[in-house]
Amino acid sequence: MLDLSGILAPVTTPFGQDGTLDLGGLRANFDRWNRTGLAGYVVLGSNGEAVYLSETEKWTVVEAVRGLVPSTKRLMVGINTEGTREAIRQCRQAAELGAEAVLVSAPSYFKSRMTADAFFVHFWSVADESPVPVLVYSVPQFTGVSIPPGTVGRLASHENIAGMKESSGSLTAIADFLSESAGQAFQVLCGAGPILLASLALGAVGGIVALACAAPEICVRVFEVFRWGDVQGAQLLQAALTPASIAVTDRHGIPGLKAAMESVGFVGGHCRLPLLQLSEEAREEIVKTFAALRAEYVGD
Amino acid sequence: MLDLSGILAPVTTPFGQDGTLDLGGLRANFDRWNRTGLAGYVVLGSNGEAVYLSETEKWTVVEAVRGLVPSTKRLMVGINTEGTREAIRQCRQAAELGAEAVLVSAPSYFKSRMTADAFFVHFWSVADESPVPVLVYSVPQFTGVSIPPGTVGRLASHENIAGMKESSGSLTAIADFLSESAGQAFQVLCGAGPILLASLALGAVGGIVALACAAPEICVRVFEVFRWGDVQGAQLLQAALTPASIAVTDRHGIPGLKAAMESVGFVGGHCRLPLLQLSEEAREEIVKTFAALRAEYVGD
Amino acid sequence: MLDLSGILAPVTTPFGQDGTLDLGGLRANFDRWNRTGLAGYVVLGSNGEAVYLSETEKWTVVEAVRGLVPSTKRLMVGINTEGTREAIRQCRQAAELGAEAVLVSAPSYFKSRMTADAFFVHFWSVADESPVPVLVYSVPQFTGVSIPPGTVGRLASHENIAGMKESSGSLTAIADFLSESAGQAFQVLCGAGPILLASLALGAVGGIVALACAAPEICVRVFEVFRWGDVQGAQLLQAALTPASIAVTDRHGIPGLKAAMESVGFVGGHCRLPLLQLSEEAREEIVKTFAALRAEYVGD
Amino acid sequence: MLDLSGILAPVTTPFGQDGTLDLGGLRANFDRWNRTGLAGYVVLGSNGEAVYLSETEKWTVVEAVRGLVPSTKRLMVGINTEGTREAIRQCRQAAELGAEAVLVSAPSYFKSRMTADAFFVHFWSVADESPVPVLVYSVPQFTGVSIPPGTVGRLASHENIAGMKESSGSLTAIADFLSESAGQAFQVLCGAGPILLASLALGAVGGIVALACAAPEICVRVFEVFRWGDVQGAQLLQAALTPASIAVTDRHGIPGLKAAMESVGFVGGHCRLPLLQLSEEAREEIVKTFAALRAEYVGD
Repeated sequence: MLDLSGILAPVTTPFGQDGTLDLGGLRANFDRWNRTGLAGYVVLGSNGEAVYLSETEKWTVVEAVRGLVPSTKRLMVGINTEGTREAIRQCRQAAELGAEAVLVSAPSYFKSRMTADAFFVHFWSVADESPVPVLVYSVPQFTGVSIPPGTVGRLASHENIAGMKESSGSLTAIADFLSESAGQAFQVLCGAGPILLASLALGAVGGIVALACAAPEICVRVFEVFRWGDVQGAQLLQAALTPASIAVTDRHGIPGLKAAMESVGFVGGHCRLPLLQLSEEAREEIVKTFAALRAEYVGD
Repeated sequence: MLDLSGILAPVTTPFGQDGTLDLGGLRANFDRWNRTGLAGYVVLGSNGEAVYLSETEKWTVVEAVRGLVPSTKRLMVGINTEGTREAIRQCRQAAELGAEAVLVSAPSYFKSRMTADAFFVHFWSVADESPVPVLVYSVPQFTGVSIPPGTVGRLASHENIAGMKESSGSLTAIADFLSESAGQAFQVLCGAGPILLASLALGAVGGIVALACAAPEICVRVFEVFRWGDVQGAQLLQAALTPASIAVTDRHGIPGLKAAMESVGFVGGHCRLPLLQLSEEAREEIVKTFAALRAEYVGD
Repeated sequence: MLDLSGILAPVTTPFGQDGTLDLGGLRANFDRWNRTGLAGYVVLGSNGEAVYLSETEKWTVVEAVRGLVPSTKRLMVGINTEGTREAIRQCRQAAELGAEAVLVSAPSYFKSRMTADAFFVHFWSVADESPVPVLVYSVPQFTGVSIPPGTVGRLASHENIAGMKESSGSLTAIADFLSESAGQAFQVLCGAGPILLASLALGAVGGIVALACAAPEICVRVFEVFRWGDVQGAQLLQAALTPASIAVTDRHGIPGLKAAMESVGFVGGHCRLPLLQLSEEAREEIVKTFAALRAEYVGD
Repeated sequence: MLDLSGILAPVTTPFGQDGTLDLGGLRANFDRWNRTGLAGYVVLGSNGEAVYLSETEKWTVVEAVRGLVPSTKRLMVGINTEGTREAIRQCRQAAELGAEAVLVSAPSYFKSRMTADAFFVHFWSVADESPVPVLVYSVPQFTGVSIPPGTVGRLASHENIAGMKESSGSLTAIADFLSESAGQAFQVLCGAGPILLASLALGAVGGIVALACAAPEICVRVFEVFRWGDVQGAQLLQAALTPASIAVTDRHGIPGLKAAMESVGFVGGHCRLPLLQLSEEAREEIVKTFAALRAEYVGD
């Protein structure tokens, strides 16, 4: 079984000022991420602005990244498409290009028709056909849909469904999904930095959190310190991590994350429209937040 | 200026049982729609299950339909993409293939970043580059976002923005958008059957309603009877139309609409997953609803 | 049948700085309101801060007001209580003290139990026992509950239910309630200034709007001008009225309304906690808004 | 400092078929509750249908109960009033009649004005004047308001604010309130049975859960088994408790709770309108659920 424990970075996609892909920037970031304790990467996820890429660009990114990820780290590819048929086609393509697992978004367009059965059939059918293990991606703040109670428990029995990423930030949701899938080979990953430690405490195996792009070390450290059994130490790290995590998600989104990355030496680059540029005040707030974080925990 | 008044059908896309495109079925439907008083068509809209088509399939549909629409009727193409850059690319392609206007969805993925300014920049940039007039598509029940007050008023001043389709079903929203754009060359179209007449009364120029695929005549008649000034006659038609309209949208969605179409002799065909098949009870309810509607208003 | 047409003021309750009732202030306000074209008054409504009064204080207010309302104007009393038994007791008391009608709030505490049947039984039972006609009060922004479709239609058949006040600000809600109760002796009153004219156009018989406390003349004028058939004239008045209406409801609430009243010579007085005092900026904004409104429409 | 740890029952108020108070039934229930390990009681809470009592009836209930609670158990009184002034008056009255603490509801009527500052001023002012310690009562599913982040942290510093009851059922809310008040003398009590154990694990000191009225032993046992450090044993008890807890809250509300109480020998009695009677199916479902629970855990 694919081991998903640890911290994975949901990597950003750098763009030039004219909106073109900056693959050189991506390469530079991987050079540095690879030297950390990150367990792996998700490309074409929400953070990767995958929704703003053409399909051709998506595969270009996957191919580029495949060459950059060492065998000691995992490579997961995000599949965000409404239709089951398209999701299957894209899972096959991603696997062909070297994805070790796929993170498949919950379909959401026809919200009132997205019943428990519709979600079940979608993920089950995709898992039947995907050449690599499937993770269910729950991110209600972007999709506007929640996966109904019981659905994940049913999906957990599929041998090609390895787990899920739960990103709503609700600890209740984490607890519910853990409880539904208890006793099955199903790994729950936390997708919201502010509840990373609490999720681990409830039984999540790891996290895929935006902050890991800009501050991988502290995210990895929370995971490791908790694993060693030092709960109080982990709480101090979590307390330091939380405001930085909020700054690059709820508060300033991907523009904030890219600014944070630049402030600590990664390549951030531009975002694509309709994401707007960050205000100067926001940028300064972020620079300050990450300078403090870095001074304290990375020792630069 | 492009005249958008009247009733347009947001056409469905028939699929075979194996999920393949049924272009023959589409052709048969147009043969019949073309003989009604419909003012035109929208392809690749929500009703067209555009979110379940690959890009290649989308253009195949547009090309097929282009050959089927007479010059007396308008052809609008739906553009549903999150990124501004992709929206522009697809507007150009649609225009190239013969679209007379494009119905551009509001971007919605990063909901909290979709501020008034983000919507404004998106639609304004698309309108700057689109070779054909742009309509703003507001459908909060699917996207989970509402276009903030004031935004439509600002967009209405762009000479390549011809109007909008408002589909939430809220008469308040129709009234607000009419009021914001008052005095400008901006046409508001109602996208929700149950408030079609009320929207016309408030100043909407027409409607793009799902029911027009299965019962074009009665939709057109409401519009015409209201135009002639027979408000009471229009109210009776609206009262008959409302339950049928709800049956093929809120209540049973596109599977319901396709069942309704089949029950009156159009080609419905299958839906693509994750849309599930209709239950037998639902199908019978729809057959009955449309038989009654047809007996009364079409005289078959 | 009680004629509810026209504009009624949902009167505020002035308090001294120490939070005590200021009955003298109330009297002064009625002196002035009585000289306008207002059709009547609602006391102990939301605007009256009835939720902050003890029961003793409530009856004190009703008794005081009873002596101030001339026979040409109507006096309605708000009954806001969760239980059916208590609502009946208080309706009797209000009638005893001279209420001509009661405006009965929808019960809302146990939200998930407040089904269509629960609302129906509540209002029907109250109407059975109330010595004076009952109006249903729908104000979802305060109660957090909406009266389900169909319920008002059933209630409209009770001979002691005279109508309703719909305050959500949704024109769709007004349209639905009008449609449900069509053909019955049931009068719909608009409770939201910004949609006053649109509600009248759809068939509402009048309005009970906060703004009528501070600017009764313009509210009455919209009603009259619309009645005379001058739709365009009414639209101009509505356009002037809307921002002032929003300022004293959605934007600044009752503290804003009391500031507006003071700025035009009524007695505003303090609010009771937990309503907080208005900021200076808010107060200035309101003074300016109402000075402009008054200059233009009252000719002071 | 008042020790709030353990399980408290939020007691129901039995009514006769004609809706009158059944104090004899209340007395019979206390006789039995007093023989369990319950740490105390809340009267006039949501479960007590306090919103359906006249003020006179409220004090009658408190006086009756005061004589029934032994010194080894605590007596808390619910204060549910919108205004700060009224809340203070009623806290004094409750203390006069023997309340050891008051559970003060968050004001909620003017939802958009209920800012962090408004909540703060309300609870702080009440705590200043209340003769007995104050608990903040957060129950968004009934009030429609959530106490904004940071507010509880500020309130926790008041020496007369002893803690809070958090009833939304969101584990995230429990975690947030614990984190805000960390390091202060502030006790968080869980108000939702399904997350009782998880709340204790995060640091809540106890629970005030509806189920404790009908099945006090199992609720107390979860608390004790967890305290002894037997987490797995507690998990089994929680798993048994959860469906029964949901049955008497989310699923069937107070009518369900009263039916459950009757099925195990307590006096349930009627509810007051607008709460409707339970259907026969619901009643049977509840009888079955509680028979199973009782067979397994109480050994009757």
